[in-house]
Amino acid sequence: MSHSAAILVIGDEILSGRTQDTNTHYIAGRLTALGIDLKECRVVADVEAEIVAALNALRTRYDFVFTTGGIGPTHDDITADAVAKAFGVGIGFHAETFSLMEANYGKSQFNPMRQRMARLPHGAMPIPNSASVAPGFRIGNVFVMAGVPRVMRAMMETIEPILPCGAPVIAITVSAKIGEGLVAAGLAEIQNAHADVSIGSYPFYTDDGFGVELVARSRDAGAVEKAAREIEKLLTSLGATPERR
Amino acid sequence: MSHSAAILVIGDEILSGRTQDTNTHYIAGRLTALGIDLKECRVVADVEAEIVAALNALRTRYDFVFTTGGIGPTHDDITADAVAKAFGVGIGFHAETFSLMEANYGKSQFNPMRQRMARLPHGAMPIPNSASVAPGFRIGNVFVMAGVPRVMRAMMETIEPILPCGAPVIAITVSAKIGEGLVAAGLAEIQNAHADVSIGSYPFYTDDGFGVELVARSRDAGAVEKAAREIEKLLTSLGATPERR
Repeated sequence: MSHSAAILVIGDEILSGRTQDTNTHYIAGRLTALGIDLKECRVVADVEAEIVAALNALRTRYDFVFTTGGIGPTHDDITADAVAKAFGVGIGFHAETFSLMEANYGKSQFNPMRQRMARLPHGAMPIPNSASVAPGFRIGNVFVMAGVPRVMRAMMETIEPILPCGAPVIAITVSAKIGEGLVAAGLAEIQNAHADVSIGSYPFYTDDGFGVELVARSRDAGAVEKAAREIEKLLTSLGATPERR
Repeated sequence: MSHSAAILVIGDEILSGRTQDTNTHYIAGRLTALGIDLKECRVVADVEAEIVAALNALRTRYDFVFTTGGIGPTHDDITADAVAKAFGVGIGFHAETFSLMEANYGKSQFNPMRQRMARLPHGAMPIPNSASVAPGFRIGNVFVMAGVPRVMRAMMETIEPILPCGAPVIAITVSAKIGEGLVAAGLAEIQNAHADVSIGSYPFYTDDGFGVELVARSRDAGAVEKAAREIEKLLTSLGATPERR
């Protein structure tokens, strides 16, 4: 049995178009490598009720939820409070985290706003990381991470070893310079003959023309290889030159 | 009154980590320019029930929904059918679209898979565009677009003139090389004194150090300017050098 996951991105800056989110793509790639199936992503604003509603929808439906954003020291960092509310628990200083952060900043520099980052929902475990003394945290099946990509990645490094590994999905990509619409009928036949493989078709455009990338995905490496060979045969029969990517 | 919007990204390739979604960022920027408030984004797999559920959740809650992905000619392009199901309407060839596409491809090349792209939910209006003879479509408050960025952008060009323009949100970004935690207390005071302005704090890291970008946003340009000046004063009082971005 494979595990399912969702990502919840928290941040006005994504919705306003200020910031291109790259965390989702990174986490998606890591989860795929670990054999965990990412099923859904959501982006919500820095609004408590929105975070609570989205988190409760996702955490009750999927095995794991990964959130990014909103755990810094400023007034707009409200994720920890929202997560506590979603779980119906209190929130307060996490003693060990408080001590670590106080030692790092020095007593005089560890001001009340920085101290906010030592507040965890009751029952949460900190996620220490190499990029920041302020931790992420885990509560139940929810992993709460920073929005800054380098900090989020350091937190993922801490999280990954404790995630259950499943069989990874194997993907083979076959590319060719041919219109998607010419491949589509044969591709549908290959998909129908290989119910255990998921076949996707992704057209692309370059300066010197266009083509399509056909991707076969499955946990069964043999089945993927079989499907990929049929895709290559199909492309060749249509006069195109298949290339594995 | 400003209008609200959501984006629904449809595609296994985003969830698997194969493709970095850039469409959300692009659409978010355009909506902000038009004065429409993007409130939520979701990414779901190429699974009909998931698309239907997400679309119905979003279209009943927000003024507009923009979808990307799943309207090509291949078997994994199931968005049009899912949208029809979500609206509880039938689906079939759109005569004008069929004729245009047939004329473009030529009768012999307009095969049954390509013809799939001429199928629209009943009541939908095509979204013609400069990048592809296959249209997107609008039904009710939902705009259905391609996943290929250049085609999606061409469809947005068609859509934008028919969207209601609101007063755009004005943003001023003030950047400084100072720790977020040192600014946080003063920033919270500024936020409390300017309820009509939304102030966000975004730390950044570069090769030669770190800093923070403080963003003031509001539909009231004067209020944004006032808040930005107070942010600059705050930074200066803390010994930092504010720069507008």
